[in-house]
Amino acid sequence: MVRIAELEVESRYLEAYLAILKKEAAASIRLEPGVVCIFPMAEQSEPTRIRLLEIYASREAYEAHLQSPHFQEYKTRTLPMVKSLRLVEMAALDVSTMPALFKKLR
Amino acid sequence: MVRIAELEVESRYLEAYLAILKKEAAASIRLEPGVVCIFPMAEQSEPTRIRLLEIYASREAYEAHLQSPHFQEYKTRTLPMVKSLRLVEMAALDVSTMPALFKKLR
Repeated sequence: MVRIAELEVESRYLEAYLAILKKEAAASIRLEPGVVCIFPMAEQSEPTRIRLLEIYASREAYEAHLQSPHFQEYKTRTLPMVKSLRLVEMAALDVSTMPALFKKLR
Repeated sequence: MVRIAELEVESRYLEAYLAILKKEAAASIRLEPGVVCIFPMAEQSEPTRIRLLEIYASREAYEAHLQSPHFQEYKTRTLPMVKSLRLVEMAALDVSTMPALFKKLR
């Protein structure tokens, strides 16, 4: 399961948001074998525009992630900081060009 | 150097475009140590909308990539197939959550 999340963060909360996001992404990768990647990026021209490449090993792994304490904490704490959120469901076209990343995929 | 390229492909050329893209991405990863990742995705709801996560080890690696025969061939052959192209320059916020992917980064 591959997705790009596009967020816009309130500029006054940007630093706080990023700290919480980094903690959540790191915990997800460390604790959840089914979280293949959470890769946070900011637009160079507008750093309050955040994009995350999210890859989960399966739909079930994603559902489990939503229930995890670290995701629940992230969601609750960042809700007032996020102006908009768009989830763009993607399909990977060629996993062979990212073999290292996909080693956890099944 | 991290970027998301957003393309819209003419639907009648989609199959041809994807074949050329896959060939180019695979060649780049195989032949160019400075091309960390070219990860092609299509939107689930509109498969003619393509996004590529592109990561280069450095600006120099990117410039070299532009001069490579496989990129030149890709660009020439796909130019008539692409309706729009937007290049969104990104900054990675936390490489620690993608260690395998970033092993080629310097």
